[in-house]
Amino acid sequence: MIAVLKQGTTEEQLNKFTGWLKGFGLDVHISKGEFQTVIGLIGDTTKLDADLIGSLSMVETVRRVSDPFKSANRKFHPDDSIIDCSGVKVGGGNFAVISGPCSVESEAQLTGIAKAVKEAGSNMLRGGAFKPRTSPYDFQGLKAEGIELLLKAKKETGLPVVTEIMDAHHLPLFEEVDVIQVGARNMQNFELLKELGKTNKPILLKRGLSSTIKEWLMSAEYIMAGGNENVMLCERGIRTFDSQYTRNCLDLSAVPVLKELTHLPVVIDPSHATGSSKYVKSMALAAVAAGADGLMTEVHSDPLHALCDGAQSLTPEQFSDMMKSVNIIRNALREAL
Amino acid sequence: MIAVLKQGTTEEQLNKFTGWLKGFGLDVHISKGEFQTVIGLIGDTTKLDADLIGSLSMVETVRRVSDPFKSANRKFHPDDSIIDCSGVKVGGGNFAVISGPCSVESEAQLTGIAKAVKEAGSNMLRGGAFKPRTSPYDFQGLKAEGIELLLKAKKETGLPVVTEIMDAHHLPLFEEVDVIQVGARNMQNFELLKELGKTNKPILLKRGLSSTIKEWLMSAEYIMAGGNENVMLCERGIRTFDSQYTRNCLDLSAVPVLKELTHLPVVIDPSHATGSSKYVKSMALAAVAAGADGLMTEVHSDPLHALCDGAQSLTPEQFSDMMKSVNIIRNALREAL
Amino acid sequence: MIAVLKQGTTEEQLNKFTGWLKGFGLDVHISKGEFQTVIGLIGDTTKLDADLIGSLSMVETVRRVSDPFKSANRKFHPDDSIIDCSGVKVGGGNFAVISGPCSVESEAQLTGIAKAVKEAGSNMLRGGAFKPRTSPYDFQGLKAEGIELLLKAKKETGLPVVTEIMDAHHLPLFEEVDVIQVGARNMQNFELLKELGKTNKPILLKRGLSSTIKEWLMSAEYIMAGGNENVMLCERGIRTFDSQYTRNCLDLSAVPVLKELTHLPVVIDPSHATGSSKYVKSMALAAVAAGADGLMTEVHSDPLHALCDGAQSLTPEQFSDMMKSVNIIRNALREAL
Amino acid sequence: MIAVLKQGTTEEQLNKFTGWLKGFGLDVHISKGEFQTVIGLIGDTTKLDADLIGSLSMVETVRRVSDPFKSANRKFHPDDSIIDCSGVKVGGGNFAVISGPCSVESEAQLTGIAKAVKEAGSNMLRGGAFKPRTSPYDFQGLKAEGIELLLKAKKETGLPVVTEIMDAHHLPLFEEVDVIQVGARNMQNFELLKELGKTNKPILLKRGLSSTIKEWLMSAEYIMAGGNENVMLCERGIRTFDSQYTRNCLDLSAVPVLKELTHLPVVIDPSHATGSSKYVKSMALAAVAAGADGLMTEVHSDPLHALCDGAQSLTPEQFSDMMKSVNIIRNALREAL
Repeated sequence: MIAVLKQGTTEEQLNKFTGWLKGFGLDVHISKGEFQTVIGLIGDTTKLDADLIGSLSMVETVRRVSDPFKSANRKFHPDDSIIDCSGVKVGGGNFAVISGPCSVESEAQLTGIAKAVKEAGSNMLRGGAFKPRTSPYDFQGLKAEGIELLLKAKKETGLPVVTEIMDAHHLPLFEEVDVIQVGARNMQNFELLKELGKTNKPILLKRGLSSTIKEWLMSAEYIMAGGNENVMLCERGIRTFDSQYTRNCLDLSAVPVLKELTHLPVVIDPSHATGSSKYVKSMALAAVAAGADGLMTEVHSDPLHALCDGAQSLTPEQFSDMMKSVNIIRNALREAL
Repeated sequence: MIAVLKQGTTEEQLNKFTGWLKGFGLDVHISKGEFQTVIGLIGDTTKLDADLIGSLSMVETVRRVSDPFKSANRKFHPDDSIIDCSGVKVGGGNFAVISGPCSVESEAQLTGIAKAVKEAGSNMLRGGAFKPRTSPYDFQGLKAEGIELLLKAKKETGLPVVTEIMDAHHLPLFEEVDVIQVGARNMQNFELLKELGKTNKPILLKRGLSSTIKEWLMSAEYIMAGGNENVMLCERGIRTFDSQYTRNCLDLSAVPVLKELTHLPVVIDPSHATGSSKYVKSMALAAVAAGADGLMTEVHSDPLHALCDGAQSLTPEQFSDMMKSVNIIRNALREAL
Repeated sequence: MIAVLKQGTTEEQLNKFTGWLKGFGLDVHISKGEFQTVIGLIGDTTKLDADLIGSLSMVETVRRVSDPFKSANRKFHPDDSIIDCSGVKVGGGNFAVISGPCSVESEAQLTGIAKAVKEAGSNMLRGGAFKPRTSPYDFQGLKAEGIELLLKAKKETGLPVVTEIMDAHHLPLFEEVDVIQVGARNMQNFELLKELGKTNKPILLKRGLSSTIKEWLMSAEYIMAGGNENVMLCERGIRTFDSQYTRNCLDLSAVPVLKELTHLPVVIDPSHATGSSKYVKSMALAAVAAGADGLMTEVHSDPLHALCDGAQSLTPEQFSDMMKSVNIIRNALREAL
Repeated sequence: MIAVLKQGTTEEQLNKFTGWLKGFGLDVHISKGEFQTVIGLIGDTTKLDADLIGSLSMVETVRRVSDPFKSANRKFHPDDSIIDCSGVKVGGGNFAVISGPCSVESEAQLTGIAKAVKEAGSNMLRGGAFKPRTSPYDFQGLKAEGIELLLKAKKETGLPVVTEIMDAHHLPLFEEVDVIQVGARNMQNFELLKELGKTNKPILLKRGLSSTIKEWLMSAEYIMAGGNENVMLCERGIRTFDSQYTRNCLDLSAVPVLKELTHLPVVIDPSHATGSSKYVKSMALAAVAAGADGLMTEVHSDPLHALCDGAQSLTPEQFSDMMKSVNIIRNALREAL
């Protein structure tokens, strides 16, 4: 941590301040310039509150120099992490295609879609059993029954299943689930993250609607600090000032930024990002070209009757068409890089 | 719900669409104009997905006409709700002054601050026992021990206590807590909200960092739909493009907007909103003038050593000075309205 | 325009309101439902203030049904516009590669870069002569001299030149410039847009930092309403809550959205969007895959000594490498669509 | 400016870097720590591009230490500036009440409103002659004729007039105008700001819709750097993710922040901020309590027929009621501080 003191700071103030800092067990390096004094702090500064130091009247500015995330940091783990999702690998050149309906509705619905997406090239099946809805009056998911239907569809197709958890105390229901998803609204539900850190399940951690990349990595760190390093990051659109034509703004520059900062795989969800099936294909292709490690797409055989988020679901035909293009761009990218 | 169809919609398309709508048990009113056809839907439209309808190729635009929140809606409950917090009333002209440290640190710390804020005019005591921190390596609160210390300070001073819950399964620890706070990061932790709806405790529901006013009211609705109507709303600053000088942007226009939409009390937290003690007083006065029902302020006897958020805490002296001004403005406002 | 009246609106209120509306020369269609009355307005509603109508106590909601942009609207002009930039076509399958330094600095600098980018596949040359800088103390550009240097580089290489205008009264200096750029900060400088509408120069209209897509199209409309239909749109990143790792957030979903709404070409500027040369290539590839009609990239032979925005400039070698990949993805996309 | 170098930077790299920095005429202070090297730069660093330095592979972080604004900076001008608007003083305890219609429509309209607002306590008259409208098809103002009507109303009532400029080349028309307003959309129209810097007119500089406080002060600096120090700042709401109930979000914490950073007066416009007359009064009172130096409010005798922004205009009766309350809070605040 670096603190720059204002001109006119007295020797007495300086001594009091450095004494306080040394009380945290830190080494304090002082560099006096003509117009300012710079203080460098060496040691474990995580216990220091940078905002508090910045608010002191003698301090001009303060800045943390090191990243606050450790387990997720590529500096300490230069190679790409490869997450094993019950046999399907993600990251380090392995591409995830996670597809399925927003909500699990019935056995017929789910199995039908599962077969269709597998045929089109999907290697995992998604489907919501517990549904976080803005309104308490909206459909909240089939819950335990939904998970059972997912496991049936898995048996039928062999596709590992991905589904969202909303409360750590539902964990026993997720025993045979292959990948546990943390939704955008729970990205900073720290109690949930801590519990997931005690499991060894692959976790798909969605970015919060207005979470910074650093906060997102800190939430991954919550899971990893507990011992579970099987974390995949999923960008699903952020909230901006404009939501007239797309529900959110897909932040694709997060892909190269995350590739630099962390070794964890990055999956893109173009369905929630745009909220509109007509924009999903072009955003999927862009995600591939940006270097993403996977795609998560909503597919529904009858979007008009979907109980949830029908507007953003592709039909199986549209999905199959998208996958053909995705594969062409993936092959081209291999040549291009 | 109102849907406007595009020019050129055929009779057959119209019949198929209205047939599908009637399948939801709705009355369908059709009004054909020269250039467009307007469809009005009467009945329980909560099961309809407006985005899906808007995505149909024949639909120009679709719009919900009625508010999605019911229990919180002032239309159906014109009088201000008055929430009884163990004897301290909030709303309908009753003003809450909730003050105390960000985190409970020790008995001496908490009781000292509690006495000081009571003396200065506070009628409730706040203090964090469970702390949601962005980093897993930051201080996470004293937890159960923190709640015990709050209850001791309550016994000593008679002030009802307000403290944050992070997981519904901690509820047994909150039995003697007077007001349960839901933090900004948990505003859409729907499982938590549902459990709080089954209690009869007053709930202080903080606004999410980038939650719309409607989403915030829908979260209040989650609690109220469960049977607990004792909800107070707390604005604590929203996230914008500018965070150089203040941590968040205090949205004071939320006060008159909420006063129109809902009967629930509105409390303002100028400490988290600004993140800087030097701006707290002027924002507290502005909140009073805007018509808020209460203030929630961080006070710490030794901000320099506070384990959390010291930069935004007032000293007891600063708080006492603020309260004198708050009372002058409150009296003036009574005359002014 | 559709207005929905509240329950309990009296016949007298209704008559007064519809009388006022008819005063604007509009046809008024009234459709009374059990719970609400819907009013449809046919005719030229551009003179009506929708916000004002929405603020009337009897009005529940009001909504414009038709798009406010006309000349830019794909509905009335289904085919892609192809803009002729002194022989280089953009749009309708023709791809623009606009490259060069942020600022024109000297003849040697500019001509050197111009030759390098032409060799690598660029078909236009960019370079700033008038520079909009946040600070009055920053380098403001070589102005008239900069334009002369651009025209020299054009003569040398044959590349049409693109440069920014900041004041309509500089227009005489732009006589031989091939494409005039309007910068993000001037997107709503309506006086400037009107003057550009009187020319027949191709205009590259950058999106404002926090302008909605609709506002952007309305600014294009300002130019087109004056008679100049040679408008190209340039997305260059929008402002969000997170600017730690990228300067702005590149909104690539704007590409498919604009392709649906308008016939105008869409160019992407990954340099300003990310603010960092290391993220430019992956965002350029993503832009191509998303369906963009062109790329605008900053290239500098000596980024370390660039007078402006060196951090986001590619070296000619990096640019050449990027162009090879861009061409591979462009070819793949043709096959994929 | 402070730069922190990464661990592992070689002596050779360090020498090359410091050599380059010295080329800008700067003193370079090097402080080597165990884990990092800190470089302090003394001298005129305004020519350095901090982003470029931050992008160098050897640099961990870089930070400007001094504010980039000088003339507007309270550090160099501790006393409040008092701006003389043709006899009406603003700042340093002097309160501006600027009121009138959004657009000048006719002599009768303007003079009627002018008399009414003067009677209610307004000390300046506002009215738009040149109107920046999002759509080229909306009413663009009476232009020169509008300014004439303003000057007639000034003669009639004695109120100094405030009106917006959209192009520096209209300046001759503004010769008798008392205060020139720069609108939000032109806050970074640097050519306009430079021209205004050559006049000695008081300038009311509105904050851009998504401009940071620092950018706003830099725009003030553009005017002041030209020699015109008569600048007043006007906050009019910023753009956020939520615009359902208010058009913008009034950022009242800008008041105490600006009071700390600058000596310039701060005026609040609650009309444009909320976009709705029903929220104007409470926001006006909050602005007063926050410490603002003035209010700018839209008043129209017939909002239903206003040609522009009727939804946010107060009637003269509502304005008079608001002013009574404003005066009560102003008196209370004097006692409270």
